[in-house]
Amino acid sequence: MHKVNYKFIIQYDGSRYLGWQRLGGKENERTIQSILEEILSVYLKETIAITGSGRTDAGVHALGQVANCHSGTIVSPENMKMEVNQLLPEDVRIIQVEKVTPNFHSRYDATAKVYQYQIDVGEKQNVFTRKYTTHIPKMLDITNMEKAAASLIGVHDFKGFATSVKERANTIRELYEITFQRKGNQVNILFYGNGFLYNMVRIMAGTLVEVGLGKMSLGDVLSILEKKDRQLAGPTLSGQGLFLKKVFYEKSNL
Amino acid sequence: MHKVNYKFIIQYDGSRYLGWQRLGGKENERTIQSILEEILSVYLKETIAITGSGRTDAGVHALGQVANCHSGTIVSPENMKMEVNQLLPEDVRIIQVEKVTPNFHSRYDATAKVYQYQIDVGEKQNVFTRKYTTHIPKMLDITNMEKAAASLIGVHDFKGFATSVKERANTIRELYEITFQRKGNQVNILFYGNGFLYNMVRIMAGTLVEVGLGKMSLGDVLSILEKKDRQLAGPTLSGQGLFLKKVFYEKSNL
Repeated sequence: MHKVNYKFIIQYDGSRYLGWQRLGGKENERTIQSILEEILSVYLKETIAITGSGRTDAGVHALGQVANCHSGTIVSPENMKMEVNQLLPEDVRIIQVEKVTPNFHSRYDATAKVYQYQIDVGEKQNVFTRKYTTHIPKMLDITNMEKAAASLIGVHDFKGFATSVKERANTIRELYEITFQRKGNQVNILFYGNGFLYNMVRIMAGTLVEVGLGKMSLGDVLSILEKKDRQLAGPTLSGQGLFLKKVFYEKSNL
Repeated sequence: MHKVNYKFIIQYDGSRYLGWQRLGGKENERTIQSILEEILSVYLKETIAITGSGRTDAGVHALGQVANCHSGTIVSPENMKMEVNQLLPEDVRIIQVEKVTPNFHSRYDATAKVYQYQIDVGEKQNVFTRKYTTHIPKMLDITNMEKAAASLIGVHDFKGFATSVKERANTIRELYEITFQRKGNQVNILFYGNGFLYNMVRIMAGTLVEVGLGKMSLGDVLSILEKKDRQLAGPTLSGQGLFLKKVFYEKSNL
């Protein structure tokens, strides 16, 4: 039977969820993947398994998560988007559906990702964005943070910036860019790289914040890279400030 | 006893509240005024009554509500702001405290206000702003809305754009400006005037949306002003899209 490979771009407010990844398959499981699979299975009238570009943890949000699934049911992407959105809860939204080549795989084919970490440095968190930031009511020295961030750019072994690394796992990644944006009391740090280890963005953000607070120096950051020791790095910041912003693919794979 | 008159600028996410105005004074009443009075009374160690620039309805938000209260306790505004913010729930925040002249009255002295009405015209509401917009998943003709809005500018009897108007109430107000902003699927309508009747912003927004949908014409809008008949105007849009943005005072009254 000919199957269609559907690619989705998905936004979600992760506040109410246990993360992207399906857990045990219990009914009404509060993960994004299981909710999408449940609704797509109803809509496409067959059991659907969906693959995401990567897991996001409990409480983490997405502006552009990418996923794909195969189905024997042929529908127009525009209708599918509209009708599935009606069925999804108000905190999950499909922003694009496309038919792609049969071999496209949202995880294996991802060439790069952008994550955004949002910090509220105000005395009290902004009441309207409070679920989408981490609250650090302190003065951050952004210039020092930028200098420390520059030392992370390039190809490095990021083992010191990851948790639960399996032995013999490849912990080498390339970071292309780290950008800082400041608007009022909100500081956003954007991380653009070819791949990220478990908790890597949250630990890098936590380490850069330590630098911004004057608790760690550029030398300390270099030493995490050199010694590859998680204990030397800053704290893992909370998931509620983290957004998966964009996933990149080669056009030829789509 | 010498009393200090404290003026506050307050932001709140109105989603969880029954509005600004204290109702019966039951404990744990979910109104902004009663929560502020409760916490200020604890902080200032005396029973505090606070006066707002005006009521906001259930579900309505504020970016810059203004209120004032008199107290015999003299504290620094900066400390008061910091400490009261610690006591307030996460959806209410004081952004400024000032000592003002004894006669300043946040309602009687208000010379003008800006309200903002936020509409999401996307097929599905944005997951991150869904609590702060009204969802109208339709094409709106903004140019026609702007033309109809222009006819509301100036001094008019706005009785047709209000609910529950008392007999012999003065329903004449001056609208200085109505501005449209569009960003992606979000349309904001800003209303700047010397005062607003009950539900007036929500009914004006509802009427302008009818124009944007082609269901009402400029002539229909003129006719509401002329006949002063609420039945002729558009629907009262939901409170969750409405923000009290700014309240203006004469400098000499502060």
